Amino acid sequence: MRYWWGWGHVEDAVTGAERAALIDRVAGLLPGADLTGHEPPEVGDLDVRPPRVTAPPSLAALCSDDPADRLGHARGKAFRDVVRNLLGELGEVPDLVVRPGTESDVVDVLDWCAGAGIALIPYGGGSSVVGGVEPRGGGPAISLDLGRLADVVEIDTTARAARVQAGVYGPALEDHLRPRGLTLRHFPQSFEFSTLGGWLATRSGGHYATVLTHIDDMVEALRVVTPAGVSESLRLPGSGAGPSPDRLFLGSEGTLGIITEAWMRLQQRPRWRAGASVLFTANDDAVDATRALAQSGLNPANCRLLDPMEALLNAGTDSPGGVLVLGFESADHPVDALLDRALELCRDHGGRPQPRAKRDASDTWRAAFLRMPYQRDALAAHGMIVETFETACTWGAFPALREAVLAAARRAMDEAGAQGVVTCRFTHVYPDGPAPYFGVYASGRWGSTVAQWDEIKTAVSDALSAHRATITHHHAVGRDHRPWYDRQRPAPFAAALRAVKSTLDPAGILNPGVLIDPS
Amino acid sequence: MRYWWGWGHVEDAVTGAERAALIDRVAGLLPGADLTGHEPPEVGDLDVRPPRVTAPPSLAALCSDDPADRLGHARGKAFRDVVRNLLGELGEVPDLVVRPGTESDVVDVLDWCAGAGIALIPYGGGSSVVGGVEPRGGGPAISLDLGRLADVVEIDTTARAARVQAGVYGPALEDHLRPRGLTLRHFPQSFEFSTLGGWLATRSGGHYATVLTHIDDMVEALRVVTPAGVSESLRLPGSGAGPSPDRLFLGSEGTLGIITEAWMRLQQRPRWRAGASVLFTANDDAVDATRALAQSGLNPANCRLLDPMEALLNAGTDSPGGVLVLGFESADHPVDALLDRALELCRDHGGRPQPRAKRDASDTWRAAFLRMPYQRDALAAHGMIVETFETACTWGAFPALREAVLAAARRAMDEAGAQGVVTCRFTHVYPDGPAPYFGVYASGRWGSTVAQWDEIKTAVSDALSAHRATITHHHAVGRDHRPWYDRQRPAPFAAALRAVKSTLDPAGILNPGVLIDPS
Repeated sequence: MRYWWGWGHVEDAVTGAERAALIDRVAGLLPGADLTGHEPPEVGDLDVRPPRVTAPPSLAALCSDDPADRLGHARGKAFRDVVRNLLGELGEVPDLVVRPGTESDVVDVLDWCAGAGIALIPYGGGSSVVGGVEPRGGGPAISLDLGRLADVVEIDTTARAARVQAGVYGPALEDHLRPRGLTLRHFPQSFEFSTLGGWLATRSGGHYATVLTHIDDMVEALRVVTPAGVSESLRLPGSGAGPSPDRLFLGSEGTLGIITEAWMRLQQRPRWRAGASVLFTANDDAVDATRALAQSGLNPANCRLLDPMEALLNAGTDSPGGVLVLGFESADHPVDALLDRALELCRDHGGRPQPRAKRDASDTWRAAFLRMPYQRDALAAHGMIVETFETACTWGAFPALREAVLAAARRAMDEAGAQGVVTCRFTHVYPDGPAPYFGVYASGRWGSTVAQWDEIKTAVSDALSAHRATITHHHAVGRDHRPWYDRQRPAPFAAALRAVKSTLDPAGILNPGVLIDPS
Repeated sequence: MRYWWGWGHVEDAVTGAERAALIDRVAGLLPGADLTGHEPPEVGDLDVRPPRVTAPPSLAALCSDDPADRLGHARGKAFRDVVRNLLGELGEVPDLVVRPGTESDVVDVLDWCAGAGIALIPYGGGSSVVGGVEPRGGGPAISLDLGRLADVVEIDTTARAARVQAGVYGPALEDHLRPRGLTLRHFPQSFEFSTLGGWLATRSGGHYATVLTHIDDMVEALRVVTPAGVSESLRLPGSGAGPSPDRLFLGSEGTLGIITEAWMRLQQRPRWRAGASVLFTANDDAVDATRALAQSGLNPANCRLLDPMEALLNAGTDSPGGVLVLGFESADHPVDALLDRALELCRDHGGRPQPRAKRDASDTWRAAFLRMPYQRDALAAHGMIVETFETACTWGAFPALREAVLAAARRAMDEAGAQGVVTCRFTHVYPDGPAPYFGVYASGRWGSTVAQWDEIKTAVSDALSAHRATITHHHAVGRDHRPWYDRQRPAPFAAALRAVKSTLDPAGILNPGVLIDPS
């Protein structure tokens, strides 16, 4: 059973002894924190306003007006979403949840909404952390849940590609592919609770640290329903015929059309693996080693540099220069030689590869990685501010950016009266720069933690913007990143995007408030 | 000295003994061919119409009305361009060649053209083979030659990236980078006679057979002058903030703006190399071996499968199943183990790796590759039809596509009264499919060879279209591929592109006729 107010499955929540240990650990780290626990409200006690719209009879069977269902679709899963739910602060709730069973249902729903001026918010797994699925326009709105479009329609084993409907969740997709020995191998942290369509619409980042980082390059062809017609691109391994049509819809976050299916490039399941953890005395050396690796052409599948605080909190490792978690994999050939060369590069930069133990930093970190959202929710219910933000920049820009971001976060925490720590890791690395990912763990004042977080977020986002780093590497723009995204994108591109929006969605019904405003 | 009528440098032309040997070879292959030689006209004898426009005094110094200069900018370097030049068929010639020295000159020229309704055709190296630089609208037109914007402005050795102006030719760019041990390593066949700006505007394909095939992935940031303002994207190694702004301009072929500079991702120069040629008895086995390689994750830098006719004509190798030319390279580590595994995969599919000789099929082929355009021109002057076309498709679609294309080409040659052969090679390979590249060598009737070629081209393009293959993998769309591109692109995307065009280029002056028509 999915939580309506927080992350994941009810049965996986942090409870009992795990919660007590977690709170103890935080109390040790932040001795002044008020860690009183708070319970979520009962859904039945919340005053959810009746729907303001009625679907035409032909669509009525697709619609749900159930308050709990609508509440579950009212927000994503950011810290600020979870806390507002815990506080029973409803905000806007979609008038209906609509679940199309076919692409032609999608067309019909679009027609209805365009004609009636109803905002239509596409919904995959609802794991947005940027306000991407939340109605904020004040007017009538529906949540278009694509969860019934969940088939793997065709598998082409020769080209290793599959035609997949947008509403397929990560685990179901892999279940479909496993019997053929194939895999998409796109594992964002939200994997269990997000869909292919959501990944495509938001340019999701998976677990590959190099090369196949974003979902973009795994797309062979897209099918998108727009109010101006259905867009279907050809299945092409590569093309140079004009600007890529797919790249216009990738990252469009439901503002230009509804992605209903895609041909996705697959791989054989890996047979060979090799991995290691490397400790460093100085974090600058660790960054240099990671850069050398990113520029080596070795293309590790995993190359995650945890700074000392991240290593301590989430990998159980005390290392003054941080820990680099490295992994190689292949379906075709052994990868030990690649790991050996990678470790040689690390040693050249002062790294100390750790003897492979039964359970080392990388295992600890992976386990922690999947528990993080659950722990975040538990801590949020105990008055903590726990949230992340992420970016990308060039290697040369990173040291000053890190300093500026940490300084801004600390200053903002001070001003907000929050005591805490900021961690940093690289989730992905490129030859020309890393994708740094920051975590904030701070004590808050129950009832004010969203406002406190918003102050911190504004400060760090301003720092990113000032250093010409992206406002998001893989969390998308949604509604929450708009002020910084608007500054970041080139003005002529913004004008182009508005023109595209006016052409494909003339009624302006598609996910209003996200990415662009109507012209 | 560059030829005005054909490919490359005058001093590198096929003359004397080389030309005699080439013609002898063709006579042996096509015994019925009329191989009489024809000379190009003298430029001075051609009746080039005086310019119909006069630049404002502030721009006069940038403008050339020299007839030879304008003739040299009137067309690209396709077979049909060269033959029309040889015949002295002028067609439309730009009224002026304009050479901006700064970005602000570019802005001023755009302003002038937008105000005066003059078509502005961006010109890099002029190596288009799709009518991309040729005025066809009937009205006044200028050729904007970016050759003076030829600086490498900045090199960031930490991120391994350089800020490069659009007018830099391939060799000059590598000359700039070599002293720093860096390289772009983007070597299209036109390398010597094409520019960075041209590569970016047309999504050029380089020599890498896998991964970094198109220029697209080497772009860190773009600067584009549009009539609606300058678009500058941030230097980002990766981003998920909305649809990629750069991907809208990559492949826009001068219709949305003038790319003036780009931050390009570089690499260290390779230190380790390993290569081999592999012979096959059956071409189907060779295709399967190439697919296995493309899906192996070994990522060869070179992986060119030549069919038996291509192997015979251009690699001097008689092999009934064709030849696979394989190469690996790295700046960081030895690559022999990768080659060994690749050869093992080839043997699994019946391939016979050749002992590495002093000069083998791959050397012969590489030398032939660079001579091809010169030989094409020589043969064109002797009444031959010599041209190429290329595409991409999935692995499963390839066998039927090849049959259909070869059948269409042969039927069209028959109907056009041309006797000849069609070759096929893979220039690039992807996990999900190859990029097949076809060559036509046929006897023609002097004076009619353009019309004969146009019939053949129409037939093979229709075959590509019927098989849902792309009309171009890396030659771009230009004016010549329009009918098939218009069918290929999704209708909502075409509408979106027209909307972008209207917004960024409201006067419709930028490369009219290419990619899209004004709405």
